[in-house]
Amino acid sequence: MTDKLLTARTKLGRLPDRGRHDRETIHRILDEAFLCHVGFSVDGQPFVIPTGYGRKGETLYIHGSAASRMLRNLQKGTPACFTVTLVDGLVLARSAFHHSMNYRSVVVLGTATLVENSAEKVEALRAISEQIIAGRWDEVRHPTEQELKATSVLRLDLSGASAKIRTGPPKDDEEDYSLPIWAGVLPLVMTPGMPLVDPGMKFDAELPASVKNYSRSR
Amino acid sequence: MTDKLLTARTKLGRLPDRGRHDRETIHRILDEAFLCHVGFSVDGQPFVIPTGYGRKGETLYIHGSAASRMLRNLQKGTPACFTVTLVDGLVLARSAFHHSMNYRSVVVLGTATLVENSAEKVEALRAISEQIIAGRWDEVRHPTEQELKATSVLRLDLSGASAKIRTGPPKDDEEDYSLPIWAGVLPLVMTPGMPLVDPGMKFDAELPASVKNYSRSR
Repeated sequence: MTDKLLTARTKLGRLPDRGRHDRETIHRILDEAFLCHVGFSVDGQPFVIPTGYGRKGETLYIHGSAASRMLRNLQKGTPACFTVTLVDGLVLARSAFHHSMNYRSVVVLGTATLVENSAEKVEALRAISEQIIAGRWDEVRHPTEQELKATSVLRLDLSGASAKIRTGPPKDDEEDYSLPIWAGVLPLVMTPGMPLVDPGMKFDAELPASVKNYSRSR
Repeated sequence: MTDKLLTARTKLGRLPDRGRHDRETIHRILDEAFLCHVGFSVDGQPFVIPTGYGRKGETLYIHGSAASRMLRNLQKGTPACFTVTLVDGLVLARSAFHHSMNYRSVVVLGTATLVENSAEKVEALRAISEQIIAGRWDEVRHPTEQELKATSVLRLDLSGASAKIRTGPPKDDEEDYSLPIWAGVLPLVMTPGMPLVDPGMKFDAELPASVKNYSRSR
């Protein structure tokens, strides 16, 4: 992405202190999440579709059925936006006006391209799997040729990525600090529940390491 | 939304069994979540921006600074897409290919309009606040005239809404059920952590009911 495009498209609006463009910050957010919201337009109508992703270096990968309407549209080269959001907490101020959220988000602008090389395709599928649940890939049956054919993988370069972050306590108007109102942050965390075994299991099997060790923090 | 538009825009692609259009399903998903991803295009470039929302009847409300680039673009009448996603769990199959997620999502296509009536504006702000943390609105200082002026509220009608849902265990290929691989679902839940008091608090205050009773289930 050229500097001109960066200025026009990924620069921040009103709150420049919330903007972060350094690679480490962007990578850390992308590695902690696993769901992105993909935006693209068809005949002037924007669509925003949630899907899993994987990061490898400076590339995001998504996948889906080769028949997927979203993937078929994206691989035509239509401009896209991939957004990843982690909500860290509710910021509870003394005034309704200063309520906010603590969050970390990454917005990636660019154009997705179809992965045609089959070695890259398998590596991308592994990256998506590892992103969603680390260690699972090595526990399961890998894709057959036929399954690979039925699957499309798209890549999106991270050069058009920017991050936005809000952390910390509320910021109230000076005179509101004397109001008798509790203020603070209610943290929100995505936590795993008790694993539910498939009722179709034909035998007893121990919980695999990928499930036992599951964690979103990176 | 006319039937023709519904057919052209909100009908489902390959997996019609995952589609739900009934109002109750759509409302229940929208009421359990509080964050939406808003899609809109500027000069052919789509943007997807996370923001809180509130539902009242058949209307979604979002708000922000009157100077917000997103709100200023949306209120011009540009086509928009609001997407709300709840991830309920990771679906862990025996094959990499059949891995999936359990989720509930709502996609709303339409055009947002600026709320100009000041009674509706206050009610919309209350709806957004109640959606994010029920009961908080009545605990805090309400917006002043000046704060209302600095805030824009947009409404989006739910007539262009559709829901998609996946639930239940993995569906593997018949022959894979005999593989010695644990399969099932790892539920994921957004849970509140320990509330963090604002270091700027000038006195001791009990935790308010809105924080004590906080829950995402509706």
